[in-house]
Order: sequence, then structure tokens, then C-alpha cells
Amino acid sequence: MKYTLSVLVENQPGVLSKISGLFSRRGFNIDSLAVGVTENPAISRITIVVEGDEQIVEQVEKQVNKLIASIKVKNLTTSGDYVGCLLMLVKVACNTKQRLEVMKIAEQMHARIVDVTNNSLTLQYADTLENIEIMISLLRPYGIKELVRTGTVALERGSSTALK
Amino acid sequence: MKYTLSVLVENQPGVLSKISGLFSRRGFNIDSLAVGVTENPAISRITIVVEGDEQIVEQVEKQVNKLIASIKVKNLTTSGDYVGCLLMLVKVACNTKQRLEVMKIAEQMHARIVDVTNNSLTLQYADTLENIEIMISLLRPYGIKELVRTGTVALERGSSTALK
Repeated sequence: MKYTLSVLVENQPGVLSKISGLFSRRGFNIDSLAVGVTENPAISRITIVVEGDEQIVEQVEKQVNKLIASIKVKNLTTSGDYVGCLLMLVKVACNTKQRLEVMKIAEQMHARIVDVTNNSLTLQYADTLENIEIMISLLRPYGIKELVRTGTVALERGSSTALK
Repeated sequence: MKYTLSVLVENQPGVLSKISGLFSRRGFNIDSLAVGVTENPAISRITIVVEGDEQIVEQVEKQVNKLIASIKVKNLTTSGDYVGCLLMLVKVACNTKQRLEVMKIAEQMHARIVDVTNNSLTLQYADTLENIEIMISLLRPYGIKELVRTGTVALERGSSTALK
């Protein structure tokens, strides 16, 4: 099963390396990882999606909690409902005729066109993992020249600030 | 100065830990880091924004290149023009009257409303770092309850697939 962990940490050099090391030493291949500062630039939030056994994930949670820079760890998957999404930039091959088709897909899927050349279009698209996969399958027939995406970021639904 | 590095790596446990360790051992505090799989699930692309001296960044590039799992490293800042963006989820406090104001901001900025309660709204917003900062300053007066964001992802402008 996949688990989404949200970790608040102090924004110090080496924290990310320590946390990703904790997972890799246990042979976990992190499904996705996103790190960015919060509204307080001294504090970062790391969102980790990991596949594994619940008990082992719980052990890793405890280890992350023990790190000095760690402020709070929450397993969003076991604690309730949350919203999750990620961001992709994708450069698609297209000639002049195909360009209109790709622009139509972008419009339908609410993607933004961020670069255009005579034989390519670059789209910015943010959505759930499921819709990101659908978008990729819609664009693949044209030829994907380059693709970069972030890990999933997630927040609990509702008005709580449990993890602030 | 800030540099945006794009690193293609084999998708193996421990790679992220090694790469983030290379930066932290030199005392670099990574400004932002984003990691996600490419169109080929065996290959991930890590985008790192780091502030530092050009010569030191070049040395780190060389070290990253030496890692076995590393396929290609490119300094997008020194090699030409690129598009970069990031994603934010932000939970804003708002009463019924303020809700309309926040919804109007979301509409103007092309943010998506992903969760609503009686006293909060959660927005999904993808854009450049500059516009993310503007959005935060627009929402701050209402009260930011929670915020999570990804690192910057970036692709070269133009139709090239130099880093594929």
C-alpha cells in the first residue's frame, strides 16, 4: 500500500539527505518526494509518498520524528482525508497541424502553454496523479521530447492546522 | 547567484540521499529541490535550485556527474533560456464574506479551489516563483492556516531534447 507522509522540518543543510537516507537504508524506494519552504521560511515541509508495509512505515515515521530538525510527522493516509496534487512540465513534438490538436487538449485539461516553437509545445499542468497519467497518455502519441514533474504535495482536508 | 540544475538519474533507492548529501557536505543549503519520474519510470529527473559561487556549483556538478546512477547533469542557468514553475497548496482562513474575496483572487490568478469548509478555503496554484510569492502576499491578510509547496521544476525553452 502507498502512504503519504507530511514532515515539517527546520530548514537546515543536510536535513533532506538524512530523511531520504532513513528511507533508502531500509530499501524503501521513495515513490515521490517534494520539499519546499512553508509560509515561515525557516521551516520546510517534505511530502513523501512511499509504498510499503504499514508497520515498517510506522517505524520510519518514529525514526524521522527522532531527528533533531524534525518538528512534526503525520501519516496523511492513515489519519484522514487529504488533497494531493503534483506539477508537470512536458515538451511535446508537434507540427503546425498537430499543434492545434495539442492546444485543444491543453484547453480541455486546463493546462497552460508556456513555450511554443515550430515543432514543439511545452505545457505546464498541475493535477492529481491520476489526471497527470491521463495527460501523459493523451500526449504520448505526438512524441514526448522532455518531461519533468514534482513529487506529490498534500494537505489535510478541512479547516484544521494540525501540522502547522 | 542562484543556479538551476537539472539532473537525470536512474530511479534507485539512495540516489536522492547521495545527491542531497553532496550539496549539504559543502554547506550549500538547497533553495529548492524537486524529484519525480520522467516519461520513462526507470529514470527520474531532479531539479535543484542552489545559491552559490559559480565555480563551486561547477565542482558540485562534476561530483554529481561522477555518481554511478547519474545519467546527465545540466546547469540550466548557464546554458540558456528555460521555463521554471512550482506548485503550492495553501489553506486560507476565511468567513462567509471573505470567502467570496478569496474566490475572486483565485479566479484572477488562475488558482483552483480544491477544498472548502465554513471557515477555510484550500487553493492549488502553479506558477513561477515570483507569482507564487505574489499569491502568498495576497492571501496572508486572511490568515494562512497551512501551506505546502514543491521545489521549482524547469525545462529548456525551444524544441531540443538535450537532456532526455
